[in-house]
Amino acid sequence: MLFCIYIPAEKVYNKLAKKTPEELIMYRIGIDLGGINIAAGLVTEEGKIIAAKSVPTREPGDCDVIIAEKMAKLSLDLIKENSLNEDDIALIGMGIPGAVDNVKGIIAGTANVPFKNFNMREFFAKYTKIPIALGNDANCAALGEAVAGAAKGKSEVIVVTLGTGVGGGIITGGKMYVGFNGVAGELGHIVTHRGGRKCGCGRCGCFEQYASASAIIRDAREALADNPDSLLGTLAGGDPMKISGKIVFEADAKGDVTAKNVVDNYIEELGDGIANFVNIFQPEIVLIGGGICNAGERLLAPLRDYVYNHCFGKGLVKLPEIERAMLGNDAGIIGAAMM
Amino acid sequence: MLFCIYIPAEKVYNKLAKKTPEELIMYRIGIDLGGINIAAGLVTEEGKIIAAKSVPTREPGDCDVIIAEKMAKLSLDLIKENSLNEDDIALIGMGIPGAVDNVKGIIAGTANVPFKNFNMREFFAKYTKIPIALGNDANCAALGEAVAGAAKGKSEVIVVTLGTGVGGGIITGGKMYVGFNGVAGELGHIVTHRGGRKCGCGRCGCFEQYASASAIIRDAREALADNPDSLLGTLAGGDPMKISGKIVFEADAKGDVTAKNVVDNYIEELGDGIANFVNIFQPEIVLIGGGICNAGERLLAPLRDYVYNHCFGKGLVKLPEIERAMLGNDAGIIGAAMM
Repeated sequence: MLFCIYIPAEKVYNKLAKKTPEELIMYRIGIDLGGINIAAGLVTEEGKIIAAKSVPTREPGDCDVIIAEKMAKLSLDLIKENSLNEDDIALIGMGIPGAVDNVKGIIAGTANVPFKNFNMREFFAKYTKIPIALGNDANCAALGEAVAGAAKGKSEVIVVTLGTGVGGGIITGGKMYVGFNGVAGELGHIVTHRGGRKCGCGRCGCFEQYASASAIIRDAREALADNPDSLLGTLAGGDPMKISGKIVFEADAKGDVTAKNVVDNYIEELGDGIANFVNIFQPEIVLIGGGICNAGERLLAPLRDYVYNHCFGKGLVKLPEIERAMLGNDAGIIGAAMM
Repeated sequence: MLFCIYIPAEKVYNKLAKKTPEELIMYRIGIDLGGINIAAGLVTEEGKIIAAKSVPTREPGDCDVIIAEKMAKLSLDLIKENSLNEDDIALIGMGIPGAVDNVKGIIAGTANVPFKNFNMREFFAKYTKIPIALGNDANCAALGEAVAGAAKGKSEVIVVTLGTGVGGGIITGGKMYVGFNGVAGELGHIVTHRGGRKCGCGRCGCFEQYASASAIIRDAREALADNPDSLLGTLAGGDPMKISGKIVFEADAKGDVTAKNVVDNYIEELGDGIANFVNIFQPEIVLIGGGICNAGERLLAPLRDYVYNHCFGKGLVKLPEIERAMLGNDAGIIGAAMM
């Protein structure tokens, strides 16, 4: 028995016959909208950046329209400078530091950049016919790692990025998980210390108040105040405000007990949050990103021990890998492009 | 242009020609393995239970094999007693209180029932050729609500069940989310009070220590000890051990201030956990299950207020509905069947 599907000849011609194999290669553009820079990249279908450029996000007085214009211009410049044309670009994806509605093409609200209920799809349509996609920047970074980074080939992935705050991204079935309203994945804003430190989000005791890079720096400053002879002070040139994550791990590596206590406590704080995510998601891999990860196995080895001792399934099932994210700032561009 | 797909005639005959329309109706069997009873139901493809029966899980001395035999017998009895045969049953799904590996068909480990590394697929194959599927019981209950209950038609759903502990189930894309190892969704075992009350899972400060039915009962007993004139004591016949969730809400409804404080605090504890899940998942709906929900809007109205004031996206995007689960014990049977 035969079941037949009719495909119009012109469609087949356009898709298959008109172009040579070289011409069939498509690219994507990924834009990572940061508070300081807008970084854009020309990305292959495999998630490799083959050209990139960036501009400062905001000069004094720049409003939403000016910033959106810069994003459009960056995209068109990337196409032109690489001798491509719009037909070669499958998508322009944008990682936005805030809440987006990709169905409507709207940036609902943002931190650090001045977009509120801004219709980016309508705006971009004035410049190009290339379709656009909007995602949260942390979600884009997670997708980047899943497509081309430390979680390549894995379909269930959690990415936790330790910076000023704690960013999160969830990949399920190999795709970015955004919830029904586009704003899922706020993994830093999980209360782990009910009634604890006030968070910028308005809640008290959020995970990011205890596990961000800012948190370990704050803890080190407090520990130095109680232990003024700590190497932390020397390495910071006597100025507690100059303590960085790097200095904390350096003092620890040199045997400073105050720094060691700060690091050990930080790893347990981080570990309890990660164990929470493992109990919820049981992903194939948890990736940790951010500058704090430069501490390498000093961070990751005891973190794994702590998590594996504090999550469900131990002794029964294979538990998630816990590794370092590897793409750094490229993750956001690649993930935006691959949406 | 024509693209042709060849389908072997015998396949078409088996699927379409051999049976009359009535004969084409398929059923499923769902089994909810509880600590006290094994409940099984014959379920339509739409998720409706049309026949059910149950037996006690464990008489003294019953081992894993005896319990598994009871599960097989229940299934075969349901088929026979409803004048069906094995060909009419698409699947036997089992909700297991523990960790399962559905790919291998193995129960890895359980609470309250004595299965450990038990190959249920192999065992069932001795009794029937009907394929089996294994799921965690709380995940099955969530799927049941999504297929045929309070979240019918919704694809992103979180179910939180407040009982002795706190059970959780995650539905994404309309399907049960089990993680890469089958044991995801342990929503009760999220540390919300780091360093807090010791939990049965080994961690300290888990959500279920503050938001389960057991937690509100414990809180009420402690409050009664500090306020011996509270109506809580009277309603419990002077015996604090007789305080139930129902009594706490009854005393509150009658204006008892001690009970009111217990209820208000409980709702905030529950609210912070639910706000955590909303920040992570932003589902279309959060369902609350368990006997505590009999309190109705006394629980749900302030819970919604608290969550909406403590989660991301407020003022920017539509936030999840928060409603009561509606299927009760049927949810587990239906969800198991619909895996």
